[in-house]
Amino acid sequence: MDYLLDPAEQPQDVPARLAEQIAFIAEIDRLKTVLRLSPLLAADRRENDAEHSWHLAVMVLVLSEYSNDPVDIGKTLKLVLVHDLVEIYAGDTNLFDTEGRKNKAEREQAAAMRLFALLPGDQEKVFHDLWEEFEEAQTPEARFAKAMDRLQPLLLNFGNEGGTWRGPGVTESLIRTRTSGIADGSRELWDFTQKLFDLAVGRGWIIRD
Amino acid sequence: MDYLLDPAEQPQDVPARLAEQIAFIAEIDRLKTVLRLSPLLAADRRENDAEHSWHLAVMVLVLSEYSNDPVDIGKTLKLVLVHDLVEIYAGDTNLFDTEGRKNKAEREQAAAMRLFALLPGDQEKVFHDLWEEFEEAQTPEARFAKAMDRLQPLLLNFGNEGGTWRGPGVTESLIRTRTSGIADGSRELWDFTQKLFDLAVGRGWIIRD
Repeated sequence: MDYLLDPAEQPQDVPARLAEQIAFIAEIDRLKTVLRLSPLLAADRRENDAEHSWHLAVMVLVLSEYSNDPVDIGKTLKLVLVHDLVEIYAGDTNLFDTEGRKNKAEREQAAAMRLFALLPGDQEKVFHDLWEEFEEAQTPEARFAKAMDRLQPLLLNFGNEGGTWRGPGVTESLIRTRTSGIADGSRELWDFTQKLFDLAVGRGWIIRD
Repeated sequence: MDYLLDPAEQPQDVPARLAEQIAFIAEIDRLKTVLRLSPLLAADRRENDAEHSWHLAVMVLVLSEYSNDPVDIGKTLKLVLVHDLVEIYAGDTNLFDTEGRKNKAEREQAAAMRLFALLPGDQEKVFHDLWEEFEEAQTPEARFAKAMDRLQPLLLNFGNEGGTWRGPGVTESLIRTRTSGIADGSRELWDFTQKLFDLAVGRGWIIRD
């Protein structure tokens, strides 16, 4: 697959550094075509990674007061904005896709190498580091960013009377286990999530084990 | 139009403040359904406001070194993430829609009142202030955020051999006038834009007056 607008396709007298940055900005347009399983609340279609990333960023602005530890908002925004970029080449791996999760790390590492290489060297490192910080979830910002990434599809599913909770093999215990990372970022939002699950189970939108 | 997930539809024992925040987060899912005129680079469809806002945010991360004045990155990110939210109720008003631009300010002010009212009072003010700061373009962050908002569709149009530049009544002088705000945020990116326009005119993607 060729890049969408590499430096050779741009006006010839653009400085090399800027041409690389523009090539990267054009290439990441592809994130808008990577579909997730989650259905939207506002329309009858699946969500894409770019609009999902935007949604997480606004959630950070609204919900950061619930983080277990104080977070740098700007840093947390960067993490959620960048966290799914590798899926441009690696594709989305759903939370309940046990098979796909086995080689997820390798596929995404290869994608990161390829995508971030478009950027000038200093920015390549910045983006790679942001992506790894999110994945490793060792900082307060990364733990809260991950909590947003787990919480957002729950809201979409709840508003869709189940959504992907109705997928094959998905049960109450699997859902509660795979989303428990929310508590690492915010115990208060994990409490909220439990109430959402209880109501969804009661309404038959989540299947009891 | 009802809100998508207002507090009454959530579990009953959720604290009022959190229920309001969740209602806002659910409601803004609608931004994913507000279509712009711009075509994507990566697929044959129009862009929506949510993925557009995400794209601007990553552009801020990559291009902030070109701002005329130093900018606070976190603040600039907030501005681009929030700037189009009012279009949930007011709709998108294209840059070349001279008629629609006449009452744009009133329509968007009414939309802001309605949308941000979902939030707790302190956050309602924060979001309203961010939106107004972007619109007024009086701070370095707002000027740079506006420059991103003008530059991004140009890249999509260029990569689509013209895109909305081929719309009715759109000519070279109109395009150069309506995008000149890029220079207020970044003279270097405005220089780049001129090169892009020159190439596009030469290729017949933009009509000379």
